[in-house]
Amino acid sequence: MYRPLFEKGKPGFAGIRTFMHLPHVQELDQVDYAVIGNPFDTGASYAVGTRFGPSAIREMSQRIRPTNPAQGIDTSEYLSGIDYGDLTVFPGYIEQTYEIIQEQLKPIYDKGIVPIILGGDHSISYPHVKAAAEKYGPISLVHFDSHSDAWKHIDEKRKFGHGSMFWHGAMEGWIDTGSSIQMGMRGTSSLTHYDETRELGFELLTTDDVKKLSAVELCSRIKERVADRPVFLTFDIDFLDPVFAPGTGTPEVGGFTTYEALQMIRGLAGIRLVGCDLVEVLPDRDPTRVTALNAAYIAFEFITLLALHRRSALDAAGIKQSAAVQE
Amino acid sequence: MYRPLFEKGKPGFAGIRTFMHLPHVQELDQVDYAVIGNPFDTGASYAVGTRFGPSAIREMSQRIRPTNPAQGIDTSEYLSGIDYGDLTVFPGYIEQTYEIIQEQLKPIYDKGIVPIILGGDHSISYPHVKAAAEKYGPISLVHFDSHSDAWKHIDEKRKFGHGSMFWHGAMEGWIDTGSSIQMGMRGTSSLTHYDETRELGFELLTTDDVKKLSAVELCSRIKERVADRPVFLTFDIDFLDPVFAPGTGTPEVGGFTTYEALQMIRGLAGIRLVGCDLVEVLPDRDPTRVTALNAAYIAFEFITLLALHRRSALDAAGIKQSAAVQE
Amino acid sequence: MYRPLFEKGKPGFAGIRTFMHLPHVQELDQVDYAVIGNPFDTGASYAVGTRFGPSAIREMSQRIRPTNPAQGIDTSEYLSGIDYGDLTVFPGYIEQTYEIIQEQLKPIYDKGIVPIILGGDHSISYPHVKAAAEKYGPISLVHFDSHSDAWKHIDEKRKFGHGSMFWHGAMEGWIDTGSSIQMGMRGTSSLTHYDETRELGFELLTTDDVKKLSAVELCSRIKERVADRPVFLTFDIDFLDPVFAPGTGTPEVGGFTTYEALQMIRGLAGIRLVGCDLVEVLPDRDPTRVTALNAAYIAFEFITLLALHRRSALDAAGIKQSAAVQE
Amino acid sequence: MYRPLFEKGKPGFAGIRTFMHLPHVQELDQVDYAVIGNPFDTGASYAVGTRFGPSAIREMSQRIRPTNPAQGIDTSEYLSGIDYGDLTVFPGYIEQTYEIIQEQLKPIYDKGIVPIILGGDHSISYPHVKAAAEKYGPISLVHFDSHSDAWKHIDEKRKFGHGSMFWHGAMEGWIDTGSSIQMGMRGTSSLTHYDETRELGFELLTTDDVKKLSAVELCSRIKERVADRPVFLTFDIDFLDPVFAPGTGTPEVGGFTTYEALQMIRGLAGIRLVGCDLVEVLPDRDPTRVTALNAAYIAFEFITLLALHRRSALDAAGIKQSAAVQE
Amino acid sequence: MYRPLFEKGKPGFAGIRTFMHLPHVQELDQVDYAVIGNPFDTGASYAVGTRFGPSAIREMSQRIRPTNPAQGIDTSEYLSGIDYGDLTVFPGYIEQTYEIIQEQLKPIYDKGIVPIILGGDHSISYPHVKAAAEKYGPISLVHFDSHSDAWKHIDEKRKFGHGSMFWHGAMEGWIDTGSSIQMGMRGTSSLTHYDETRELGFELLTTDDVKKLSAVELCSRIKERVADRPVFLTFDIDFLDPVFAPGTGTPEVGGFTTYEALQMIRGLAGIRLVGCDLVEVLPDRDPTRVTALNAAYIAFEFITLLALHRRSALDAAGIKQSAAVQE
Amino acid sequence: MYRPLFEKGKPGFAGIRTFMHLPHVQELDQVDYAVIGNPFDTGASYAVGTRFGPSAIREMSQRIRPTNPAQGIDTSEYLSGIDYGDLTVFPGYIEQTYEIIQEQLKPIYDKGIVPIILGGDHSISYPHVKAAAEKYGPISLVHFDSHSDAWKHIDEKRKFGHGSMFWHGAMEGWIDTGSSIQMGMRGTSSLTHYDETRELGFELLTTDDVKKLSAVELCSRIKERVADRPVFLTFDIDFLDPVFAPGTGTPEVGGFTTYEALQMIRGLAGIRLVGCDLVEVLPDRDPTRVTALNAAYIAFEFITLLALHRRSALDAAGIKQSAAVQE
Repeated sequence: MYRPLFEKGKPGFAGIRTFMHLPHVQELDQVDYAVIGNPFDTGASYAVGTRFGPSAIREMSQRIRPTNPAQGIDTSEYLSGIDYGDLTVFPGYIEQTYEIIQEQLKPIYDKGIVPIILGGDHSISYPHVKAAAEKYGPISLVHFDSHSDAWKHIDEKRKFGHGSMFWHGAMEGWIDTGSSIQMGMRGTSSLTHYDETRELGFELLTTDDVKKLSAVELCSRIKERVADRPVFLTFDIDFLDPVFAPGTGTPEVGGFTTYEALQMIRGLAGIRLVGCDLVEVLPDRDPTRVTALNAAYIAFEFITLLALHRRSALDAAGIKQSAAVQE
Repeated sequence: MYRPLFEKGKPGFAGIRTFMHLPHVQELDQVDYAVIGNPFDTGASYAVGTRFGPSAIREMSQRIRPTNPAQGIDTSEYLSGIDYGDLTVFPGYIEQTYEIIQEQLKPIYDKGIVPIILGGDHSISYPHVKAAAEKYGPISLVHFDSHSDAWKHIDEKRKFGHGSMFWHGAMEGWIDTGSSIQMGMRGTSSLTHYDETRELGFELLTTDDVKKLSAVELCSRIKERVADRPVFLTFDIDFLDPVFAPGTGTPEVGGFTTYEALQMIRGLAGIRLVGCDLVEVLPDRDPTRVTALNAAYIAFEFITLLALHRRSALDAAGIKQSAAVQE
Repeated sequence: MYRPLFEKGKPGFAGIRTFMHLPHVQELDQVDYAVIGNPFDTGASYAVGTRFGPSAIREMSQRIRPTNPAQGIDTSEYLSGIDYGDLTVFPGYIEQTYEIIQEQLKPIYDKGIVPIILGGDHSISYPHVKAAAEKYGPISLVHFDSHSDAWKHIDEKRKFGHGSMFWHGAMEGWIDTGSSIQMGMRGTSSLTHYDETRELGFELLTTDDVKKLSAVELCSRIKERVADRPVFLTFDIDFLDPVFAPGTGTPEVGGFTTYEALQMIRGLAGIRLVGCDLVEVLPDRDPTRVTALNAAYIAFEFITLLALHRRSALDAAGIKQSAAVQE
Repeated sequence: MYRPLFEKGKPGFAGIRTFMHLPHVQELDQVDYAVIGNPFDTGASYAVGTRFGPSAIREMSQRIRPTNPAQGIDTSEYLSGIDYGDLTVFPGYIEQTYEIIQEQLKPIYDKGIVPIILGGDHSISYPHVKAAAEKYGPISLVHFDSHSDAWKHIDEKRKFGHGSMFWHGAMEGWIDTGSSIQMGMRGTSSLTHYDETRELGFELLTTDDVKKLSAVELCSRIKERVADRPVFLTFDIDFLDPVFAPGTGTPEVGGFTTYEALQMIRGLAGIRLVGCDLVEVLPDRDPTRVTALNAAYIAFEFITLLALHRRSALDAAGIKQSAAVQE
Repeated sequence: MYRPLFEKGKPGFAGIRTFMHLPHVQELDQVDYAVIGNPFDTGASYAVGTRFGPSAIREMSQRIRPTNPAQGIDTSEYLSGIDYGDLTVFPGYIEQTYEIIQEQLKPIYDKGIVPIILGGDHSISYPHVKAAAEKYGPISLVHFDSHSDAWKHIDEKRKFGHGSMFWHGAMEGWIDTGSSIQMGMRGTSSLTHYDETRELGFELLTTDDVKKLSAVELCSRIKERVADRPVFLTFDIDFLDPVFAPGTGTPEVGGFTTYEALQMIRGLAGIRLVGCDLVEVLPDRDPTRVTALNAAYIAFEFITLLALHRRSALDAAGIKQSAAVQE
Repeated sequence: MYRPLFEKGKPGFAGIRTFMHLPHVQELDQVDYAVIGNPFDTGASYAVGTRFGPSAIREMSQRIRPTNPAQGIDTSEYLSGIDYGDLTVFPGYIEQTYEIIQEQLKPIYDKGIVPIILGGDHSISYPHVKAAAEKYGPISLVHFDSHSDAWKHIDEKRKFGHGSMFWHGAMEGWIDTGSSIQMGMRGTSSLTHYDETRELGFELLTTDDVKKLSAVELCSRIKERVADRPVFLTFDIDFLDPVFAPGTGTPEVGGFTTYEALQMIRGLAGIRLVGCDLVEVLPDRDPTRVTALNAAYIAFEFITLLALHRRSALDAAGIKQSAAVQE
């Protein structure tokens, strides 16, 4: 059973930087979730440098305790979690990196561990979700972003990038678009692109659509859509307004506050997460580090969702928590 | 017919920086709107350096495409636009600069081109609006700002600055205050100043006034006020909260979000814009560049208003767009 | 009678930096309020450097005029105010500093002057409030913060820090917890801490609690709670969202906007303030200086509350303002 | 007798920001030197914002003690010094500001006080030196800079700016060019400009010229040139390499280190300073604040030169220091 | 004949950003040199983002005039130069980008135009030099850098990156290593790498080697090595000390000052340059912009070398400059 | 045998941040040196925040390979090294922290392991050196700094801070001042302080003294002074010029370049290091991160000195390296 290492009397700013002071472990037994860095950014179309995202998010996660009063749970009572470190990637070589990422994730998924992956540019969701689908079958995507990332790449010789992976996912069948939903799209996209994305099967809500709903309404809609299917939650930090996430490569003005985002994620309690990623944090454009800070706390909300799901399962099975966690 | 130069396969970050990749042209035939930099900041009363505003806004405009899904229009189908470059100014010499700005704008207005002017400190609206009035008669001002800029200057020897140009406009008659409206005033102004401004004829809504209205309600009020008169839209970036626009010279806390501002501008579809400026972007106080980013996208919304107006006119005339744009 | 020194024709950016151009005076006669810097930060548990808070806040206060149109009052007509300078502190030595702070504040309180203290880390509220209680008896605390700062310190040898001073205040009796209220708590605190704090007698509203109330509703609740008792208003800048206050040591995501905070403070008109502090501004993490800017204007709202209270008292006594202020 | 206010036990970071903790005084009796801010920057030709120079330099001067071990003197034993505050200026109006600066400096010079003026853009040397000449006759200029600032302005209607004041000084006769020297010129100036400047009478050493000399050799040359005439020392911070002074408006690559500059100034001990200025510190381009830091310490070296001169005079007169300073 | 566009009375900060205000032209007649941006950075092994290098360097080049007093020449009298804009690149796809770069450079070289290419990461020298060799035969490389970039890539599937292009050049024969020289190597490289590089034929001088030579001595050595062969000058900005070039991806401590670098380049007058690049400027790590500033001025020294070479040729041919430049 | 973990194909920017990718180990067998963070900064007298120094230095150490070509050695062939993580400290409580630091270092020294400690403010050298002396007897201090840190604290109740620890060391006898040397002192210290420090027995060279010596001369002097006694090398990053180390709390202008410092440390090969610390790196004032970068590489030079010493010992003993390192 792995828990954050808050040694008695040791201040939060001391120590090697792992996510939330989780132990840095690469053994996979007795692990419920693994925070994993994926420092790959060769898929970026505009500003670049998210390879330093995992390091920055870890730095800003040092004050997070495993308890979540807003959700009423101490995650460390229900889950064993580790910081697995970073994946090996080949900067400059997309296809080769996709392959090696998928290989590295296979043992994680095979053990039933939920990866919480810190990006990296969004193109890495290609292997993240594809690897999940190898284990669980076609995946329901819950996708917070200002872009749909479902563009068809016109050039066969340069197929991949952070704008097209979900088009590939739909075409290659590892995303179950019919139970997937995308939220927050905005910006100076083409006029037909949202409809083209919907034709792939995705439900797509623009920023204006989302702004008209309460967090509760939105979450109902999402939960209805995914039902009890295996969900991969992918969160592009540019879902937030550029003021809340200046440190990202393709910011779109007029987005969401962190508080709005927290309410949306907290409202998802109950969904069956099999994997998550949080991508596009670009520290070199984040002088206040507020982007990485927000990212760290959003990732912690993902962990909280896992803990809540576990608690429900234990409750349903009539098992008390004290029995569930044996160190 | 001039359109943004997105060459096939060329990434958005490549190329000489013009606004939205518009062609840099100084010929004025076949032009509907001209983005123009006015790098003058000698009128600033506090922090100074908006002479670099045009350059910073252009830099942050590189990802803007000419399509606006939120408004349902591709501006490049209805309008021919150019980046005219920057006006000549004389730093340190206000009156002489006013004169030369007005001279430089005359051929623009004379051709019926709508200038989208990027400041520069707000004092430059003096020649911008005055030159418009020479062409169109007294102008209806639609003014987003945290300051009314309608102070009487007490000292005859130092008459000009970025707090008094609209007092001059009212007194000299090139602003039609009776159909003009100012929105967003706040800060530690004098207790009598808002009423003094109203006595000039302006409608003035403080930030508290505006916060009580929906964007739809506000826009109705503005549109009723200006009706079908020629409008100059002047947007001081300090209308936004300092968090959304840190890079400005006289920030006032407790302002508006970018999303709120976008809704207000989008709601103005239908008004008859003859000129616009977007001022007070100060890059040296904008380490995240979010101020310049917001400014670029707001300027693009101005262009969208022009395109919508053109489309309405064409529709009304029974002309199909395909006939309207001949390259 | 001391008023801000806006010399005719002298620009706001000129001059030695005192708060709002108040005269720097250490005489205490004829003074209603004193802005005082307390550059102590040894109590900080995470990021540190608020010793430069007073200087940064003064720098960003240079554009504040003593008039408050939103509240309809010119504070300089009702109050005589000074910038007292900074207190002497001993960096690295908490207990010794508490003592000397208390000594330095005694003559201020004894004269009935209301100190507006600029921190400094929040631990300094220990001597601030304790010194107030020496004069006025147990104090009603109105506390805006993302943390309750009412943790019991487990270690007797290291008793003090910026997370425990209000536990000490409750235990030592200089806070009247039964008429005190805390607002804005959030973050990954322990699950039981809010209730433990309530058991000390405090009313505690989490961020989620506050978000459900309008500013008017919240202020009614506060005013009912404190009634006409002597109030110390303590404002930790991390009450604001980290985007609105990046420059602070222990930011908690998902907080309040400046506009929300202004409405809450403005709504408190009528309470009987005997002292205030505004703490945790950390300039080295504030590259846009927006944290210090917000802090300066919030402190000015405190001064406005004092002026409004004075005006009410004069009105009640049938005294006209012109009689009240004699220079 | 005024000395820096280092109260016992009060840390250097506490207190209202005056230069080197000097008392902020506007009385001129018993004063040897006065540090004066001149926050005027309307003369700047490129980046602008030196109006915040005095404030930034004061902030970075807080750790300076009045002792100078490298020069072997405690300046406070020989000199009475004050921080006079900032001059009134009219931003946007050069000629009017020149006039009012000169008026404000007159009483300083008349009392025989040496002003140490912190700019501001370099154009302010026009009234600084002109006012000195009114008192002392034509002045010997010792000028450290990467630009000669002796350009003839071609346009009569826009005569003034930070590149031409020493041409005016030469033409109007308030600079004695025959005993003046300029050092450090470099950059992409015209090929004939250095010779044109020399034709005005100035000795001009380019950066390459200076790099070939030791500090001792350079100082001999300067001292020979100025002999015992009244000297105004003007130091443009862009004399330093842009790495040592990034915060300035017209940086020229390939300049001097701070250590080199210190050696040059220290070597000037003995010259008869009647005034000095240190200009072109632009805080908004100085994120590490190293420019303001260097400026503060260089200004302190000017004060040291005054103290050394005083000590020599006292020694020559056979007066012991203990008699010289009576509090 | 193209010259920088300094319009009379127009300040340096005004206008669309081209290098040194050169006209943005893509016609290739009557052109001696073309400044070209190459915004490709997929070859970077550590920090990434040099795709914004060209834009940043152009921004910081606005104050450069075409005259070089240190070298005694006005480049615009001898050379016709343009800003060609940026090359098309495919971010994320190295091999495909090499091909297209080479294609785009071919017409430049074919016309005998000298490209001054602004990077981008150093891997782009592969197509830069290779394209030169197609025109001129094997090239003599003059290489300023802290790394030799002559590593053999061990993995055939990922052959390219910014550490290996000169190994490829040596192996593929488009670099004439026997007349090539590398200077400035340092860092925690392998112990055998320098010798391995020398075995390829390169002369290699470490930082320690170079520090022992005067600029004059170094330049003699370089000129002897390259004699009158066609030279490609490649300058990696990390040749400079990280303090002089913080904005770069793989900084190595303990390097050179800008002044040292300027002296080295100026000393190369006479060599036969057929192409140059200046690479690895990473604006997102350059908050003071001093890296881009230094880069801009170094690029201008390259242009100066071309002008000096042209003047010598004209002198040798007995042609007066006035005949050489006909507009 | 512990060596840096450069996994084949894994880029330098990937992975949990330990110093130079050393394994994070807290077992002490088979260890020659341990890099240890000491995030304590309560002793700081001016700017504060070096508690984040260890984290920042680790981040900037990711590109360091264990080979040092300038010194001709691969440190990993001679030494087994670990990153031990950070010490426990009590922020706000100096004396208690001194005690616990000393306790934590005891097992390190007892095993004969050389600690390379990353600060933290310089006051932590108190327990660092004192703990060394417990093992080795009075220590020879080799001290690079702009301050002597040998001030007597006048107040018994506040005895400790980062300016006095070496006075305590001299008085308490754990420093052997007669074989100790301090270098680089400058700033506006008192006129008598250097002599007072010399009276404690230290050799003290001011910055001016050092500038007059070559690195070779300086190193001879140091080596002569310490001979073969056990040396603690303490390096305050403010030894460097503020331009080379802006991120520090008490910068002193006119210091040394990184290259100069490297030469001085490299020249110390042969001395018998028993411990080292590198202190006063303050990341919040280091926007370019060049301070942390320089610190990381200087710390690596310390490791190199250890490796060179080991190689000499092995050579002297006739042992070949291959026998020395058995994994």
